[in-house]
Amino acid sequence: MRVLITGGAGMLGRKLTRRLLERGHLRGEPVDAIDLVDLVEFGVESDTCTVHAADLSQPGETERLMALDPDVVFHLAAVVSAEAEADFDKGMKVNLDGTRRLFEAVRHSPITPRVVYASSIAVFGAPFPDPIPNDFHPTPLTSYGTQKLIGEALLADYSRRGFFDGIGIRLPTVSVRPGAPNAAASSFFSGIIREPLAGQRAELPVSRDVRHPHASPRAAVGFLLHAAELDTALLEGRRNLTMPGVSVTVGEQIEALGRVAGPDAVELITESPDPVVAGIVAGWPQRFDTARAEALGFAADATYDEIIQAHIEDGLA
Amino acid sequence: MRVLITGGAGMLGRKLTRRLLERGHLRGEPVDAIDLVDLVEFGVESDTCTVHAADLSQPGETERLMALDPDVVFHLAAVVSAEAEADFDKGMKVNLDGTRRLFEAVRHSPITPRVVYASSIAVFGAPFPDPIPNDFHPTPLTSYGTQKLIGEALLADYSRRGFFDGIGIRLPTVSVRPGAPNAAASSFFSGIIREPLAGQRAELPVSRDVRHPHASPRAAVGFLLHAAELDTALLEGRRNLTMPGVSVTVGEQIEALGRVAGPDAVELITESPDPVVAGIVAGWPQRFDTARAEALGFAADATYDEIIQAHIEDGLA
Repeated sequence: MRVLITGGAGMLGRKLTRRLLERGHLRGEPVDAIDLVDLVEFGVESDTCTVHAADLSQPGETERLMALDPDVVFHLAAVVSAEAEADFDKGMKVNLDGTRRLFEAVRHSPITPRVVYASSIAVFGAPFPDPIPNDFHPTPLTSYGTQKLIGEALLADYSRRGFFDGIGIRLPTVSVRPGAPNAAASSFFSGIIREPLAGQRAELPVSRDVRHPHASPRAAVGFLLHAAELDTALLEGRRNLTMPGVSVTVGEQIEALGRVAGPDAVELITESPDPVVAGIVAGWPQRFDTARAEALGFAADATYDEIIQAHIEDGLA
Repeated sequence: MRVLITGGAGMLGRKLTRRLLERGHLRGEPVDAIDLVDLVEFGVESDTCTVHAADLSQPGETERLMALDPDVVFHLAAVVSAEAEADFDKGMKVNLDGTRRLFEAVRHSPITPRVVYASSIAVFGAPFPDPIPNDFHPTPLTSYGTQKLIGEALLADYSRRGFFDGIGIRLPTVSVRPGAPNAAASSFFSGIIREPLAGQRAELPVSRDVRHPHASPRAAVGFLLHAAELDTALLEGRRNLTMPGVSVTVGEQIEALGRVAGPDAVELITESPDPVVAGIVAGWPQRFDTARAEALGFAADATYDEIIQAHIEDGLA
C-alpha cells in the first residue's frame, strides 16, 4: 500500500501522516510507503516517508508523482481562502489548475487509485435554510469556494467515467487549529480557544451568537481515512458530501472553554468587534443536515468540549 | 451597441442574430454591430454583421475578439452533449478552456460587458424530486453537464469580483429544432414533430410516458435577449438560473402534433424502442420549479401546441 499526500507539509497533511504511521495499515493492507508532496522540502522522521518538492500546477509535475504508482491519493494541497481571495490568479493556478493536472495525471496512470479530495463547506454561500439540506445547491461567495466546487465537479465526472475512484469530502472549519494565528477570517474560531489555553490573550471579532460547524483536526483526519476506505459504490454516483461537525455558537465555544479550562482562561478573551470579519462570517454556513455522511460512517466529535480536549491531548501544538 | 456572439453559426446563434437585426436595439440602444464568432467562416447577409473564425480554446484568440469592445457578449459556443461524452478531451478543451479563456479576456478588457452564458439543464442529474426545486444541487451525469456547471461557477465568481456582469441561463431542451437529426440522445424530441410535419417518418426510441421540459428556439432566443437586458442586481448574487419550459410527456407532444397537424402526421411516428437512448433519458430532469426565473420576467411558451406553431411559422427550416 503506497499513499501519496499533496499538501503534506500542511497541518492536516502532517496529522494524517502521523496517524497513518501509527495505525500502519489502510484498506486492509500495510502502509509500505508514504509520499509527501509540498511546494518545498521539509523534514520527516520516518523511513516510510519520502518528501517530494513539486508545484502541481506546473506541466509534468503531476505525471512525475503519479509514476510513483500510489494506491491512494489524498489531495489536500490548496491556497487557503484568504489568499485565494487576495490573489485571484494564484488561487486559480493552484486550486483549479493544480487539481485538474493531478486528476489528469491520475487518469493517464496505469492504475486506478482511490482519490480523496479535501473540499470545503466554503462551496456554500448565504442565504441558507437552517439546517442546510443535503441536496442544497452550492453558491460560493469566495474564489476559494468556487475553485473547490470546480474540483468537486471534476472529481465526480472523472469518477463517473472510471478515470479513478474519487470521493470529495467537504470539511467544516477545523478547530482547534494548532500553531500561530493566520490571515484567514476564520482564524478567531481557533484563536479564542488556543490562545487562552496557552495563557495568552485572544481577540473576538464577532458577536457571541455567531453559529458555525467545527471539526477537530483529529476528526478531520478520521474523515480522510474513512473516505479512503469507504466502499464508493455506496455513494451512488454522488461523490461529494458534507462532513458532520459540531454546530455551536461562539458563546457556546467559550462556555466549553470555561468548563474544560476554568474561568481564568475565559477572562483572556477580549471582545474586539471587526465589521469586516463579521461581514465575511455572516455569509458562512451555520448548520448542515449531514445524515447522509453519518449513515456512511463519517463520525464527528461529540461535543465542543471534546474538541478542546482533543487539542489538549494532541499537545497544544 | 456592439454585440458579440460565440457559436454564431449554430442554430441559436443564427436565430439570435436574426432577432437582433429585426428589433434593431438592445438595452435601449441601437445595435450598430454584431460580431459573429465560430470555428469556420460562414455567410451572413447583413452589413451589421461581421464573421470571425476563431477557436476560443487557443491562446490569444479571445483577447483578439475582446479588442472589438463588445457591450454584450452572448457565449453560446459549445461542443454538444454527445460529442463531449464521446471525446472527453475535446469537450474539456472547448467547453471548459474556451469558456475560461473568454472570461479571462473579458476580465482583462477595459470595459465591463454584460456576459450571457448559455448553460443547460444538463447540469442536473437523477435522482430528482418532482418538481426540481430552485435550490437543488447540480450533479451532472455527463461531461457536457459538468463543463457547463464549471462555466456557471466561473461566471458567478467573475461577476462577484466585478470582472464582468454575468448571467447564466440553463436552457431546457430546445424543440422543435430545425434542420437534420443529430447524434444527440435528445434528437428524437424534435424529430417526432419535425419529420412528420415535413411528411417524413420518425422513430420514437422511448416510452410515451417520458416527461421532459421544452422551449422553442423562439422562446430560447427570448431568454437570451431578456438576460442581456435584465437588471442583474435582482439576481442577488445568484447568477445562474433555470429557465422555464413546457413540461410534457412524449405522449402529450404527439397529441399536440395531432391537434396542430392532424392524424396523418401522427401516423408517421413509429415506435422503435432503443434501450441506450431510454437509459440516457431516464437520468434527465422532468420538471422544474422555475418561479424564480418567471418572477424575473423570463417567459416560456404557453403550451406545446404553441411550440409546434412557432416551428411552422418560422418556416419549418
